[in-house]
Amino acid sequence: MKVLGIIAEYNPFHNGHMYHLKSSLELIDPDYTIVAMSGHFTQRGEAAIIDKWERAEMALKNGVDIVVELPAAYSSQTAELFAYGGVQLLNHTGVVTHISFGSEIGQIQPLAEIARILADEPPPFKALLKQYLDQGLSFPQARHRAIKEHAKRSGLGFSESQWEKIINSSNSILAIEYLKALYRTNSSIIPVTIQRIGAPYNAQEMSGEVSSATAIRNELLRQKCWDSISRAMPQASFKILKCAVESGKGPVTNSSLEQLLLGKIRSMPLEEIKHLMDVDEGLENRIKECALKAATLDEFMALAKTRRYVYTRLQRILIHALLGITRERVERFRRAGGPQYLRILGFSKRAIPLLKQLKQNARVPIITKAAHYHRILESPVAREMFDIDVLATNLYSLGIPDPRYRRGNRDFTEKIRIV
Amino acid sequence: MKVLGIIAEYNPFHNGHMYHLKSSLELIDPDYTIVAMSGHFTQRGEAAIIDKWERAEMALKNGVDIVVELPAAYSSQTAELFAYGGVQLLNHTGVVTHISFGSEIGQIQPLAEIARILADEPPPFKALLKQYLDQGLSFPQARHRAIKEHAKRSGLGFSESQWEKIINSSNSILAIEYLKALYRTNSSIIPVTIQRIGAPYNAQEMSGEVSSATAIRNELLRQKCWDSISRAMPQASFKILKCAVESGKGPVTNSSLEQLLLGKIRSMPLEEIKHLMDVDEGLENRIKECALKAATLDEFMALAKTRRYVYTRLQRILIHALLGITRERVERFRRAGGPQYLRILGFSKRAIPLLKQLKQNARVPIITKAAHYHRILESPVAREMFDIDVLATNLYSLGIPDPRYRRGNRDFTEKIRIV
Repeated sequence: MKVLGIIAEYNPFHNGHMYHLKSSLELIDPDYTIVAMSGHFTQRGEAAIIDKWERAEMALKNGVDIVVELPAAYSSQTAELFAYGGVQLLNHTGVVTHISFGSEIGQIQPLAEIARILADEPPPFKALLKQYLDQGLSFPQARHRAIKEHAKRSGLGFSESQWEKIINSSNSILAIEYLKALYRTNSSIIPVTIQRIGAPYNAQEMSGEVSSATAIRNELLRQKCWDSISRAMPQASFKILKCAVESGKGPVTNSSLEQLLLGKIRSMPLEEIKHLMDVDEGLENRIKECALKAATLDEFMALAKTRRYVYTRLQRILIHALLGITRERVERFRRAGGPQYLRILGFSKRAIPLLKQLKQNARVPIITKAAHYHRILESPVAREMFDIDVLATNLYSLGIPDPRYRRGNRDFTEKIRIV
Repeated sequence: MKVLGIIAEYNPFHNGHMYHLKSSLELIDPDYTIVAMSGHFTQRGEAAIIDKWERAEMALKNGVDIVVELPAAYSSQTAELFAYGGVQLLNHTGVVTHISFGSEIGQIQPLAEIARILADEPPPFKALLKQYLDQGLSFPQARHRAIKEHAKRSGLGFSESQWEKIINSSNSILAIEYLKALYRTNSSIIPVTIQRIGAPYNAQEMSGEVSSATAIRNELLRQKCWDSISRAMPQASFKILKCAVESGKGPVTNSSLEQLLLGKIRSMPLEEIKHLMDVDEGLENRIKECALKAATLDEFMALAKTRRYVYTRLQRILIHALLGITRERVERFRRAGGPQYLRILGFSKRAIPLLKQLKQNARVPIITKAAHYHRILESPVAREMFDIDVLATNLYSLGIPDPRYRRGNRDFTEKIRIV
């Protein structure tokens, strides 16, 4: 049995995702597809535009068989941790045989080579890295140069155009991290990459049938031209998005949580901010100071941002503050082997045999009814991780436009989506 | 030199306050008047309708000479602690000779007798209290009966109508607490009471020239009929209120802080809620549960309220959660002797000689420029108390209608008001 695994956010599910899914199905021809999807907070440190159940349904309606939630402790993290969390979640299923991800280059070989260099850090590579850093380059710049030079010297050279496609794209960075995680976890899952089409990952503007999720969210938040959004999404997922927005379940953004986010940082002692994931030496002062100076979240971001402390990193730190994600907790989760459960958000009826397989093979507990999580999750670390997901939902809900959906504990009251 | 002290909230300053101030001036004929005023959170556990600087200015424009801030650690507390904080603040000035407060009864003697019984708790009173409690009466009911019976037996009997005026009014309850605090702190300040006129303290509806502050706030939040509000306030303070509201500085209510309040409780572990001031056995569970169930703050209050856990108590607990006011901190402040500084919000130019007197006689440091508080406040407990005031302002600001006023650290940027 072949089971395809995909790591995604589907925020929201659009034509680019559809293309990736279809191409993967054609190439791999799996019996089933499982998606590990971010819950309420995404890799860029943002509240998801609509809730995780709606987004899971989007995927199911477009042919995915099971959607499992990437725990919040991994979903709003840097590419490396996000990818590790996603890959381990797929490893833990015990049934996923293939993984497919997008990349600009569309070839697995050069990505795998870079991943291996980064995972192993061979001494010649490290020496090159040190040399470039000593020349005063920033860490990402130095690393890029060191990889390129190391690959050339080792006879793994890439052509200039290949290289350009690799380094100038968020997707390839994620692809490399997926490959690194597969390699490091000694995974038996076979990686496949699909060349991305259309708009770049974080393009701001709509561009016809294949627009980025960022562009679709911007369109929704600014002009809200349903026609142009409709062109960029499969109809099934467009309907879900439109209906969710019209009923007041969305859109949700970090600005919807402005009072909570600014209030949280204003309330937190420096000593606590310091221990949050991604806060390195002295950044706690800057964050606190800017949260006091700023009247709005936008102003906070504008004040706090520097070349070194980019938007996404600051956004992630705000989410870490909100959810109490400290370095120490992340380290504890890492020692425990990453995601500690498979929380199923939804499945298609045709996936029932796969669910049985999953129950037999999964290496971590499966949660279908969250109300029982205390019984299902025996280890304290698993419960700690799940408590973060519950908190994420309870705080995310406070940013939903219609107050009717702001009630807490939706993790225990929302039904699993069956399509 | 005679200096009149008043403990107030002026939320907002209205004709009833004006009447009380004028009557006190006539009766006592002091050289100066100092008011100890709640900052951003009030005795009923509510965000003040406009900020403390605007409210201080209202008092100054109406004849008060100096306004000092009652620290937030004391302002949103039960009558007993609120009164203790206010009285100690006046004691600490070293210059206040008289205190005047309103009461329905308008006579100091019976109030002082009750205060003394409550402060001393003589054995016969305790026995009566126990007897009524054993009969199944609630604590306030049993205490009322025990006081009345004890007073009668000791020959301090009140007439029925006096008694009715005492027990059925929030102001008399506060008056008794002021007297208790004066007695317990062995204060040399002479108490005077002015009979209240017009609307009861917490009347909900406007009633002409003397309306309660509650009624004025309700009017402002609901119909916003400036004409009827204008009739209930001295013109100088009406202008300040109207201008503040029109410029977007107010109105602020607990609902303005809904996301922060619900989010705070949703985020707090039960163990932490348990340690908050006013949370007694098991109440932490109810509070947490209701904050999860409720979609709005109003819904939270409706769900959480019982005969035992009244609105004001629940509101206070929310504010304690927001500001981190635990039983342990309150106890530490009590051991340190209550308010640890005199933070001056504003003064009238004619009070400059009084300010000099204050500097010579005050038993705690005087803060006129908060930026220097670290130098001025030597004791850690004083700084801890002041940090709560700063936090109160920083979180209160997030609820101000116009985002321009949501910037933090206004305690360090707003100028002292000089009238």
